[in-house]
Amino acid sequence: MSGLHTTAATPWPVNAWYVACTAEEIAEKPLGRKICDERMVFYRKTSGDAVALEDFCPHRGAPLSLGFVRDDLLVCGYHGLAMGCKGQAEEMPGQRVKGFPPIRTFPVIERYGFIWVWPGDPAAASPDKLHHLEWAESSEWAYGGGLYHIKCDYRLMVDNLMDLTHETYVHASSIGQKEIDEAPVKTRVVGDEVHTSRNMEGVKAPPFWQMALEGAGLPRDATVDRWQVCRFSLPSHVMIEVGVALEGHGGYDAEKSKKAASIVVDFITPETETSHHYFWGMARQFAVDDHELTDKIREGQGKIFGEDLDMLEQQQANLTLYPERRLLKLNIDAGGVRSRMMIDRAIAAERGLQEPAGADDMETAHS
Amino acid sequence: MSGLHTTAATPWPVNAWYVACTAEEIAEKPLGRKICDERMVFYRKTSGDAVALEDFCPHRGAPLSLGFVRDDLLVCGYHGLAMGCKGQAEEMPGQRVKGFPPIRTFPVIERYGFIWVWPGDPAAASPDKLHHLEWAESSEWAYGGGLYHIKCDYRLMVDNLMDLTHETYVHASSIGQKEIDEAPVKTRVVGDEVHTSRNMEGVKAPPFWQMALEGAGLPRDATVDRWQVCRFSLPSHVMIEVGVALEGHGGYDAEKSKKAASIVVDFITPETETSHHYFWGMARQFAVDDHELTDKIREGQGKIFGEDLDMLEQQQANLTLYPERRLLKLNIDAGGVRSRMMIDRAIAAERGLQEPAGADDMETAHS
Amino acid sequence: MSGLHTTAATPWPVNAWYVACTAEEIAEKPLGRKICDERMVFYRKTSGDAVALEDFCPHRGAPLSLGFVRDDLLVCGYHGLAMGCKGQAEEMPGQRVKGFPPIRTFPVIERYGFIWVWPGDPAAASPDKLHHLEWAESSEWAYGGGLYHIKCDYRLMVDNLMDLTHETYVHASSIGQKEIDEAPVKTRVVGDEVHTSRNMEGVKAPPFWQMALEGAGLPRDATVDRWQVCRFSLPSHVMIEVGVALEGHGGYDAEKSKKAASIVVDFITPETETSHHYFWGMARQFAVDDHELTDKIREGQGKIFGEDLDMLEQQQANLTLYPERRLLKLNIDAGGVRSRMMIDRAIAAERGLQEPAGADDMETAHS
Repeated sequence: MSGLHTTAATPWPVNAWYVACTAEEIAEKPLGRKICDERMVFYRKTSGDAVALEDFCPHRGAPLSLGFVRDDLLVCGYHGLAMGCKGQAEEMPGQRVKGFPPIRTFPVIERYGFIWVWPGDPAAASPDKLHHLEWAESSEWAYGGGLYHIKCDYRLMVDNLMDLTHETYVHASSIGQKEIDEAPVKTRVVGDEVHTSRNMEGVKAPPFWQMALEGAGLPRDATVDRWQVCRFSLPSHVMIEVGVALEGHGGYDAEKSKKAASIVVDFITPETETSHHYFWGMARQFAVDDHELTDKIREGQGKIFGEDLDMLEQQQANLTLYPERRLLKLNIDAGGVRSRMMIDRAIAAERGLQEPAGADDMETAHS
Repeated sequence: MSGLHTTAATPWPVNAWYVACTAEEIAEKPLGRKICDERMVFYRKTSGDAVALEDFCPHRGAPLSLGFVRDDLLVCGYHGLAMGCKGQAEEMPGQRVKGFPPIRTFPVIERYGFIWVWPGDPAAASPDKLHHLEWAESSEWAYGGGLYHIKCDYRLMVDNLMDLTHETYVHASSIGQKEIDEAPVKTRVVGDEVHTSRNMEGVKAPPFWQMALEGAGLPRDATVDRWQVCRFSLPSHVMIEVGVALEGHGGYDAEKSKKAASIVVDFITPETETSHHYFWGMARQFAVDDHELTDKIREGQGKIFGEDLDMLEQQQANLTLYPERRLLKLNIDAGGVRSRMMIDRAIAAERGLQEPAGADDMETAHS
Repeated sequence: MSGLHTTAATPWPVNAWYVACTAEEIAEKPLGRKICDERMVFYRKTSGDAVALEDFCPHRGAPLSLGFVRDDLLVCGYHGLAMGCKGQAEEMPGQRVKGFPPIRTFPVIERYGFIWVWPGDPAAASPDKLHHLEWAESSEWAYGGGLYHIKCDYRLMVDNLMDLTHETYVHASSIGQKEIDEAPVKTRVVGDEVHTSRNMEGVKAPPFWQMALEGAGLPRDATVDRWQVCRFSLPSHVMIEVGVALEGHGGYDAEKSKKAASIVVDFITPETETSHHYFWGMARQFAVDDHELTDKIREGQGKIFGEDLDMLEQQQANLTLYPERRLLKLNIDAGGVRSRMMIDRAIAAERGLQEPAGADDMETAHS
């Protein structure tokens, strides 16, 4: 642990479902990935069920992810020790494996096209605690996405997504427009979510949304009402409802034929204290059978989210160099600040603490 | 700070003008560069005046160098906080910025084609303290140069340039010749400079100087008198007068038509304790309008100075591995040794100390 | 030193002959190589004799390996200090070098096509302590080999080579076959060597050995008896007698015309605690004049040994991440375990200790 986190053993909740990988990533062979500072290996049993174990063979410490699956066993690619899905040694040529020490297993669920892992107490893991993602189950939605590895604290990405003001600057040529930071932002806690929303009325759609309007069969250059509703939920998911509707038809509430609406999907999985896996994507409710459009959106979105990488990694470098500096918490930052408070409370609760130290020491500038 | 510097917080003076970048480097957009362990951003105001600030947005710690200039403000490329040239927050969409903490500003001067920065006490900064560089202002001189990033203590580069014996070895095929280390070297302190000089009479010019002779309209293969006068001045500049004159015409003092004379220009700007920015170039007094020759010399010099990189970086690796070893200080090293004493005295003076500890513990071998 | 080695200053014996480089590596110019955490430079005198010195010029700490050889002296490529083969400064232009501090010299022997270095006490170095390698001196053998740099503790490579069970998994497509880990393994200490052997009778040869059979003028697809005898000797050499004979002709003891027999040659030279130089090769007793076959075998072997790299480096990463975990020591690991005990005893003996702490704390699982 670095000196940055004095009240926490780790700066993330562990009793939570994180996205580990996409379903496809383990279609062919095991996958090694470090999540929440644990080296894990993911693979499928014959039944297709996904399994997560420590990526550490109890024989000689080799990474199991370099091995292969035989029946329901994960066979170490070094000397052939075969591990079962409960983390126990099952067999090895010429050896009795009964006394071998087990390795950790991590609860996993496959749902919505992703493998979800629970890095903390297995007894507390329950599928019920996985969010319901309507867009992932309904045929009225289409989805495309990707994965980036980013060398910064996962919470900087939460901040990024809970304050879309940055679109005006970082993504000026695609989804940014000056009206974004002119529109006031509203932040509130709704149940176990933090919501930050912003509406822009009677504006021109920026290039990405012109493409979307066209994809939805609407005129590219129409005047529109645009909305952004960022929803944070534990441990580190950000779903952003975004869209444009032809002006005056109700914006967010406009009927389907008058708008191009979608959800920016962000699953942010900590790797180490200063790196994370960023699963991004877009679920949309228009032209859902247009696979070419799906590819086009994925390409555009990949390019846009790539623009954040350098900014976030250099921001991390600055914060690492000047750990003592306090950052400002403005109204536009309220989404990130409230989200971090929710994270801090979850961490404190896991440790049986009353209240996280320092969670409320906001230095909000007047605005 | 590493264990190498027990008496000093930093191994460089801070109340001094260092070259930060060339004028062209900030022509189009802001430039981020770490100088003397500080992350700085350089940009131009509408007036063209250069400004240097900390490369740290007080809002969320983003690097300002990824932003852009609007009127006289440096706008953060993350969320649009616009900083003024005094380091104060000036404006931000939808925010009152009055209470925002300022960031540091660093005095800068643009002169001689470079942006100069003063990392220390702004109150002590004065343009008068910048060296006068005649060659940079006179039409009788032509200049070309470049920039290398080198992973070694900047003082190893000072040593390198204040002892040209190494040319015989490191640059054997271009400017080296055996007569260099056969010629005695004279070192003395002249005012606030350290001078090391060497003369070689009646020698053949090595390849680089044959090219220069030809460029100056003189015979490539003439027998020449060659000179080298290295001048160190604080904080870490080394100007080296070099040249060849047709034999017997007075060498250094020969009339212009009988010689090819130039100044090797070296501005050595610390980045960290084990890395620096090396601005190198050559100012010449012959064929000053021959731009093709300028390019040719730059190319040749760039190749030559590139030969030092591996040596210097591996030397640093050795010194880092064996920090307890004392190096020899021979007569040929006197230029570097005297320069380092001048540096140490400047550092001590900045801290109000009488005398730097250890500045005189030379272990000069007999020679 | 890392926390991994509490009883040892270094995890390798220093009073021993290690392979430093091949004879060819210093044919043209000096070679710098770090061995047992010492930066060394190797070069040849006019006589052809190899010399090893510290790679540290006593003048200014430059790496001598960037210099050149003049007569019997190693001349520093920075300022021309010429060092003699006893580590003493011999001459320098314009300098008296009598008072210069010497640098360390390391005993070296050239034999069997390699330069061998003794990193420890020179007084204890003796050519007699170098192993006799019959295959390297006899015209009845042919040899080909290569060198890999591997980022793991050299003892993980010893483990690797003293337990060939891994061939079944890591090298499944070349030398692995299921019969390997079905065949029992015998480990015993024979004099100052550890032997681990395994025999497989009446098997099909895997692809690499089919090529060898053909090279030896025998049928590729014959049923064969196959053997593997791994011999560890201090400090870290592993010679593996391997081969296949036509079934029923006596296996290892079959007459020459009925078998393809060779020795896998492994010299494992520590660089740092987590990296080593791996000199691998194969000496064979069949078709010794077939240079094309030598190349083919080298290529095949290089590919096979390359398959170990990722496994070993990731194994090191796992062990570094979880330094407290105890590894299993099974019967198949006995070769590595016994070899490490021999190493530990050698280290303890060098320090005048009775017995290495912890050398016998094997946690052997039942098998």
